[in-house]
Amino acid sequence: MNELRVGLLGLGTIGTGVARILIEQQELMARRLGRPVRLIAAADRDLARDRGLDFSNVRLTDEADDVLIADDVDLVVELIGGYEPARSFVVKALEHGKHVVTANKALIAKHGEELFPLAAEKGLAIGFEAAVGGGIPCLKALREGCAANAIESVYGILNGTCNFILTKMENEGADYADVLKEAQDLGYAEADPTFDVEGIDTAHKLSILAAMAYGSKIKFDEVFTEGISKITASDIESAAELGYRIKLLGIAKPHGDGDVQKVEMRVHPTLVPAHSQLAQVSDSYNAVQVSGDFVEHTMYFGRGAGERPTASAVVADIMDIARVCSGEGADGVQFLAPPMGFVDRERRELETLPVADIQCEYYLRLMVQDQPGVIASVTSILADHRISLEAMSQKERSESNSVPIMMLTHETTEGNLQAAISRITSLSAVDQDVLILRKESAVV
Amino acid sequence: MNELRVGLLGLGTIGTGVARILIEQQELMARRLGRPVRLIAAADRDLARDRGLDFSNVRLTDEADDVLIADDVDLVVELIGGYEPARSFVVKALEHGKHVVTANKALIAKHGEELFPLAAEKGLAIGFEAAVGGGIPCLKALREGCAANAIESVYGILNGTCNFILTKMENEGADYADVLKEAQDLGYAEADPTFDVEGIDTAHKLSILAAMAYGSKIKFDEVFTEGISKITASDIESAAELGYRIKLLGIAKPHGDGDVQKVEMRVHPTLVPAHSQLAQVSDSYNAVQVSGDFVEHTMYFGRGAGERPTASAVVADIMDIARVCSGEGADGVQFLAPPMGFVDRERRELETLPVADIQCEYYLRLMVQDQPGVIASVTSILADHRISLEAMSQKERSESNSVPIMMLTHETTEGNLQAAISRITSLSAVDQDVLILRKESAVV
Repeated sequence: MNELRVGLLGLGTIGTGVARILIEQQELMARRLGRPVRLIAAADRDLARDRGLDFSNVRLTDEADDVLIADDVDLVVELIGGYEPARSFVVKALEHGKHVVTANKALIAKHGEELFPLAAEKGLAIGFEAAVGGGIPCLKALREGCAANAIESVYGILNGTCNFILTKMENEGADYADVLKEAQDLGYAEADPTFDVEGIDTAHKLSILAAMAYGSKIKFDEVFTEGISKITASDIESAAELGYRIKLLGIAKPHGDGDVQKVEMRVHPTLVPAHSQLAQVSDSYNAVQVSGDFVEHTMYFGRGAGERPTASAVVADIMDIARVCSGEGADGVQFLAPPMGFVDRERRELETLPVADIQCEYYLRLMVQDQPGVIASVTSILADHRISLEAMSQKERSESNSVPIMMLTHETTEGNLQAAISRITSLSAVDQDVLILRKESAVV
Repeated sequence: MNELRVGLLGLGTIGTGVARILIEQQELMARRLGRPVRLIAAADRDLARDRGLDFSNVRLTDEADDVLIADDVDLVVELIGGYEPARSFVVKALEHGKHVVTANKALIAKHGEELFPLAAEKGLAIGFEAAVGGGIPCLKALREGCAANAIESVYGILNGTCNFILTKMENEGADYADVLKEAQDLGYAEADPTFDVEGIDTAHKLSILAAMAYGSKIKFDEVFTEGISKITASDIESAAELGYRIKLLGIAKPHGDGDVQKVEMRVHPTLVPAHSQLAQVSDSYNAVQVSGDFVEHTMYFGRGAGERPTASAVVADIMDIARVCSGEGADGVQFLAPPMGFVDRERRELETLPVADIQCEYYLRLMVQDQPGVIASVTSILADHRISLEAMSQKERSESNSVPIMMLTHETTEGNLQAAISRITSLSAVDQDVLILRKESAVV
């Protein structure tokens, strides 16, 4: 059968990894596919840098159009990242009849609902396995492997930078700022780490997972998002004493009787049982836990980033497309699982569960003045709001005469909890700055 | 598009689960597929038993042929288990133009090399995701998700009964026989547990994984297999003291320069680092760890058995087939990933690595007479064979004046180790019965 000709946009870290597989692993891929896949062109602004690869059979160019609209390219791999010009390039590729594979979570989260219909209209495929969980084939597992299930929950450790920082804080009893600096020095965190540590990257990925799990549209803007920057070594220690580890999780759950009517989506540091499989996911590893009404709990674990793992997922998508699309007109995109797990006409506009309605157990850290009656006042406010406590611990007094109090509550709604907290912080003996973490006991 | 009509062979535990999904989850499946899948017929010898399902639109029969050769069946699900008559039924189904989905690992391990070519010749699909790892979509992950990789190793906890027994022995300090009895009482182990506890079931599954990973033929008969029945609570305790847990693993690795020339396949109780992700897999959970040259380490975790999880995997296969095969003649089996991960003509007759050539670190438990010089004799024999020790511990003397000695060796070959052991057991002060376990440090 004739070959599938691939054009690459972007020869950065991941682009180089993809080129490496396409060049070095050609024979293995052909044995698995029964047809060759060939890297035919690659575009990057910097062509001078040595990437340690033999590009002698590849058309190198600094013009994106030499890939996007070239007649000899069947499939474009977009590895530029970010919203623009990635979006315009992908639109152009689709308009010129090219299949698209991307690792760009921001692009899919923000513009997926524009790109999927365009691809469907043109009879083209969009692959984006690498956008969530790096090398882990977790989207395939959710979309195809768990396709017989109504999905009951999705929990994901989706950002390697945050997981690396939290693991190091836990192992070394170190504080956030010190570990962040170390991570930046090692290249594990960006100079401006906001996207990672404030949970935005995780929210991108979660919005894709949630839409795929529940057949809804991607609603990245509606994900409730909190990062890890307020967590202290002492919070991690308190959590450990209570039998938990703190992980930045993306969480999606369905709401409704029988049919899903609303989707809960949230990203925040979360206490998970210390002996759970998810709690063991350390360093820069990622994992996605998918629970379904038949399959029960499943988990998919691996490298969430990096040249080689991410390239592995990109090429898996290329191979899926190569299997059904010969590049000869007899293309069979309809034989692929639909990109978002439900056929297009069946994807619904589901509402996002309002934040106030989220039900959670909570971990609270309050700084209170060390004087009689404060704890009584705090706990009586909680009682007023019918929030009962599972555990409470008081740490040693700091220099400022204020004492940290840690509390673990039973389940209540976010709205109710916030109302109680606002009354508690109006007490003169309680500091304004309350740390609110959430706990998920159902994690395995 | 027209519906895919499914016929079921066997309404036992898993068959009932499959029927339940096909009946109860019809609408969800159609939203994901864009076409309906319908359970049209089901055969079982016992039709009297109430399965709590509404079979009013299903042709129930006690004649396998009413499913196997019926004109209105497009796909046959074989859930009888065992070698025969399962094999004959599947052959018959294929000869009558039906796609086949099965959860039968024994069938695929033993007769896959007969069935795959027959299916290919007829242009039909065979799905068997449920045969390995129960509900976990691990075959899809290996075959498609990791398709761009040369696979460096596969480690699997593939038998829930063994994992349940080992977990309970560890948690309760209980001995094998007691826990087995408890597992039998609870229905987690069969009255005759040989198939599970002696590693045969794991070997079936491993032989499938190995062939899929390396593009070789399935060679179940050549898997080196040891079970868990000789492990004592004291071995588990010693392993824990050394920082390891004992799991029954199926292990596959490639050998050769560049190209794979030989495949190593073994099933045995294995010491894995206590803090590894695989060591955390407890109770009846299963997990498969796949490492590739690009993706690095990945792991797939979930329920390895049970009505609902296994049915989830069976129906995922049905849906994959429904996506490409309309049942109207325009069938597109060629668009599916090849069942064993490599196109048929590229699957090779790879040799199995001889057992004596396996390289391992070892855990040894010897019973020795409590008299001077014994340990010196043992260790000097090991030194003769250039086997160096990583750790050694001696337990308290038992009533019989013999003392258990536990040793952890550095890497050596199985052949060399066995030669040393045979010299050691010829010492009059050493008991004949030496327990040999193997250790895998590379597990994550």
